[in-house]
Amino acid sequence: MSHASVTDVLAGKYPVGTTVTVKGWIRTRRDSKAGISFLAVHDGSCFNPVQAVVPNSVANYQSEVVRVTTGCSVEITGTVDASQGQGQDFELQATDVKVIGWVEDPDSYPMAAKRHSIEYLREYAHLRPRTNMMGAVTRVRNCLAQAIHRFFHENGYAWVATPLITASDCEGAGEMFRVSTLDLENLPRTDLGKVDFSEDFFGKETFLTVSGQLNAEAYACAMSKVYTFGPTFRAENSNTSRHLAEFWMIEPEVAFADLDDVANLAEHMLKYVFNAVLAERMDDMDFFAQRVDKDAITRLQDFVEKDFAQVDYTDAIEILKASGKKFEFAVEWGIDLSSEHERYLAEEHFKAPVVVKNYPKDIKSFYMKLNADGKTVAAMDVLAPGIGEIIGGSQREEVLEVLDERMVSMGLNPEDYGWYRDLRRYGTVPHSGFGLGFERLVAYVTGMGNVRDVIPFPRTPRHADF
Amino acid sequence: MSHASVTDVLAGKYPVGTTVTVKGWIRTRRDSKAGISFLAVHDGSCFNPVQAVVPNSVANYQSEVVRVTTGCSVEITGTVDASQGQGQDFELQATDVKVIGWVEDPDSYPMAAKRHSIEYLREYAHLRPRTNMMGAVTRVRNCLAQAIHRFFHENGYAWVATPLITASDCEGAGEMFRVSTLDLENLPRTDLGKVDFSEDFFGKETFLTVSGQLNAEAYACAMSKVYTFGPTFRAENSNTSRHLAEFWMIEPEVAFADLDDVANLAEHMLKYVFNAVLAERMDDMDFFAQRVDKDAITRLQDFVEKDFAQVDYTDAIEILKASGKKFEFAVEWGIDLSSEHERYLAEEHFKAPVVVKNYPKDIKSFYMKLNADGKTVAAMDVLAPGIGEIIGGSQREEVLEVLDERMVSMGLNPEDYGWYRDLRRYGTVPHSGFGLGFERLVAYVTGMGNVRDVIPFPRTPRHADF
Repeated sequence: MSHASVTDVLAGKYPVGTTVTVKGWIRTRRDSKAGISFLAVHDGSCFNPVQAVVPNSVANYQSEVVRVTTGCSVEITGTVDASQGQGQDFELQATDVKVIGWVEDPDSYPMAAKRHSIEYLREYAHLRPRTNMMGAVTRVRNCLAQAIHRFFHENGYAWVATPLITASDCEGAGEMFRVSTLDLENLPRTDLGKVDFSEDFFGKETFLTVSGQLNAEAYACAMSKVYTFGPTFRAENSNTSRHLAEFWMIEPEVAFADLDDVANLAEHMLKYVFNAVLAERMDDMDFFAQRVDKDAITRLQDFVEKDFAQVDYTDAIEILKASGKKFEFAVEWGIDLSSEHERYLAEEHFKAPVVVKNYPKDIKSFYMKLNADGKTVAAMDVLAPGIGEIIGGSQREEVLEVLDERMVSMGLNPEDYGWYRDLRRYGTVPHSGFGLGFERLVAYVTGMGNVRDVIPFPRTPRHADF
Repeated sequence: MSHASVTDVLAGKYPVGTTVTVKGWIRTRRDSKAGISFLAVHDGSCFNPVQAVVPNSVANYQSEVVRVTTGCSVEITGTVDASQGQGQDFELQATDVKVIGWVEDPDSYPMAAKRHSIEYLREYAHLRPRTNMMGAVTRVRNCLAQAIHRFFHENGYAWVATPLITASDCEGAGEMFRVSTLDLENLPRTDLGKVDFSEDFFGKETFLTVSGQLNAEAYACAMSKVYTFGPTFRAENSNTSRHLAEFWMIEPEVAFADLDDVANLAEHMLKYVFNAVLAERMDDMDFFAQRVDKDAITRLQDFVEKDFAQVDYTDAIEILKASGKKFEFAVEWGIDLSSEHERYLAEEHFKAPVVVKNYPKDIKSFYMKLNADGKTVAAMDVLAPGIGEIIGGSQREEVLEVLDERMVSMGLNPEDYGWYRDLRRYGTVPHSGFGLGFERLVAYVTGMGNVRDVIPFPRTPRHADF
């Protein structure tokens, strides 16, 4: 692996005149009449390819170099030179070109050098990272993931792995995938003729989790500050640009923290990771601003510069009523805000990210802390201009009696939550957390309109290819 | 959250005389006859608790302080003082003690301050992070995870999320969990009477993945250097100290890299993350060395200091035959090495971590590169003293014709691997990678004997609690 990355060559890490070898794939080939070929070589390490200038004096010029096509893999040795071309400071004067892998029938190569529709690229999820767009998505996604881990680590949070396979339904809601090793052609039956899950792998019926929150709470009630970063699942038949059956979620959970504390945490975290993208991946962001969403960069710059607004749900309802806007869904106290309401608040009223707090208890989950008014719970949504809700969180109910009442009133059986109740029986503490869907974050940052295009191999209804 | 972490107080971040507030849980309480109580408070941020010296002049001394028990949550304000006690430089002279959460019936508190068996703690997976041992495991596990991300990021690798739900079986082997939303009491049937998976969520039969490797290869063949860090699943009915049904795996995949390159990568990565533990978590490692495994620290120190040995499988067989040892499993060319063989090589013969390379093709997977001898494949196992195999990897077969032959000879249908074969049809490159089971790594570092005790909520046959 003693070769140079394209990033390092373009960044000037090798002085002019140095001999280096780069390895990568051909993006384009252009031949001059003077008998020189220009090969643009990418290796995934950055947005731009490096240009290799290949004179017809290299031994295999006629036999191979002029036959090279988009997608061929090559190993090119040459000397670093200052580039005359636009958009790059350095190029290679090639002295040796090895073709490592040809493209079988270039005319039918699915990733030929032309614009492909996003829908077409989805059909080739195994090859689409070779395109400019999906390469950029992959690097920005990685930058965001690394920044998230770094942010939490620097701030004293421990990453914890919460289980994917679970026998309980976290929120008493949400459609789930069953996980089983039972032979469907020969299902074991109980005496009453029902499927006998005691014969299944885990001795009971199990599912894929919809959230790691309850388990993260157990760890926050010992380690104080923890976060999860792992996959979660929804078996909802939702064919929208915002839904995946399998997606990654970040869920910090903090002991001795109230709702305002995690609202501040959300603000700091989002600004930290957006700043990381602006500092590290402007090459890719320039592409998104030019070709995907012209506001991609300014949206992030605005976001990190502005203080978050904060508003109570009850006040937000009054703002929406007084707006004079004709909303599709009527506004009255007690409704869940819909996307049009959220975007009005963030984009038109506050013109900034906004934290809406203290929602009516009847539209929220049993574990959210009941406020003193008896009507609302200490829940929050972070609404971002250009997308709406990006984070949802809450303070958790730490008082056992109130938690039990909430469970019963919502039709849940406290006995099913024995271990979760224990956290309130033994040294209970106020604690709070939130959830951030990673793919929605990547879609927001890149301006990509569909979460299917910001995860390598999307899982959606009737799609589990690759 | 404007309180001080125990870590910062013990590290002397606050000068003597500063007033600070700490929040955490009581580990122990000791009362002196002079009317002073000593409260040891932990908050998960480090191994040691901070000692709060509470005089009987605080208002709630008789009513609350002397009733405090292990596990109570407290908020203690006091001035930082140099400590007279052993093992800590600083303590708090408390001026205010608030009890936030009591322990309901302290006599029956499952985590009372005494030694519990590891098996007992497993029954209380939601409370065990409050113990010294599981707190230390959690911090070391986090340290390892952060170091792994940092290592790959610093070396130009992109983290990629490979899918958990899959319609294909990576290795043509390995028992898998089925993922389904079909109603088991009312299964749809085809005309032939078979279960009709076209009616299932994904329109076909789907499983939980056993490896992200094949998908990672697609990304390596575009981004050059990638790694996965995510959950994988095995539906094997294995009740051993080394097996989990759900575990986390790290799988780097590198284009333009051969077997020796990824052997070097494995050595650098392991040394990097072990050095991180030695630099950052000596508090926890001291505990493991004292109470769990006396070699815990020296094992890591030896590991990072020694060069890895490298040996061909064929030579390793000769070494084992010549050892004069009586092995349970007879040694002859063609066998898969068993744990006793691996440990002899690492612990007795080489006395260092050892990379065994080029295994017989018949005991390895179809995707491993066939060597020129036609008998072996470019596979490797990294064997570590004290545990045996810790990493398994290989160079991948990048030549389409050879790959197809290997699939056919192993009873696989190349047509089932269309997208995987595309990677060899279009700009194929030599590429290699390996897999590292994260829980086995944490068990190795901490000396904990069972992987069930290094993951928060273990999933094993008949166990999916919490």
